[in-house]
Amino acid sequence: MKTQLAIALALGAVTTAALAGPIEEQIRFRQSAYSFLGWNTAKIKAQAADHPETFNKDQVIAAANAIAAVANSNLLELYGPGTDQGTGWKPTRLKPEYFQKQAEVKELEATFIKEANELQKVAEDGDVGEIKAQFGKLSASCKGCHDLVRVRE
Amino acid sequence: MKTQLAIALALGAVTTAALAGPIEEQIRFRQSAYSFLGWNTAKIKAQAADHPETFNKDQVIAAANAIAAVANSNLLELYGPGTDQGTGWKPTRLKPEYFQKQAEVKELEATFIKEANELQKVAEDGDVGEIKAQFGKLSASCKGCHDLVRVRE
Repeated sequence: MKTQLAIALALGAVTTAALAGPIEEQIRFRQSAYSFLGWNTAKIKAQAADHPETFNKDQVIAAANAIAAVANSNLLELYGPGTDQGTGWKPTRLKPEYFQKQAEVKELEATFIKEANELQKVAEDGDVGEIKAQFGKLSASCKGCHDLVRVRE
Repeated sequence: MKTQLAIALALGAVTTAALAGPIEEQIRFRQSAYSFLGWNTAKIKAQAADHPETFNKDQVIAAANAIAAVANSNLLELYGPGTDQGTGWKPTRLKPEYFQKQAEVKELEATFIKEANELQKVAEDGDVGEIKAQFGKLSASCKGCHDLVRVRE
């Protein structure tokens, strides 16, 4: 019985890895997604918060669409078993505790998606103050996840 | 006069670099954008072309949104002067000819955006055959740019 369970678990792990790609690839894809995200959050921070005199509605909408697309891209499939160890573009900073904190992670992901979708709506409306406020909520959702499962640099 | 021109050109280059970030950062961001793009094009290829039995409309829509968001993110701002040399996550493969082929590059970018926006629409409609056909057009637009300005591996 124990052997059967071990085989079933091993097969499950293999299937998940096969779907999501090798460990190094999962890490590289998620690092890419977050870098692309960071490039776009920096644009919104610059144009809606730090230098509102440079505000360009079309650019902010494009950046908000990019952020929402990343949030809704099913990032968690890139966190397969074993991906707390390994190197994508650089060594991963995922804490091993990630795998024990699935309920919190999923709740944080849902918040991230909600805030990103809301930012996309607010960007379409084009009110700089509202965009800045919503960007603050989005950033808080990023930080929530970093604090929980990312090793500090 | 020549000195004034040289200074003006140098200042122009500095300003552009300051706007887009250091060379290594521009290269890293564009490599990230294309990797995120590749992760999402692979999902559409798998679900609409290679294994249509795995087709999942919501996942294909999310992937198409991601592709369109990358296409519309103003990638060309990450191709500042000097970025045909340097290392982001890895050494860039941009050909120096990029800077002499601006008209063709801009036309190819416009085609890429058009095909990505159309893929986003077709994904919403959910017809696997149409998604596959439109994905072929998108892939052709990618290849057009690779052939023009990317060093073969």
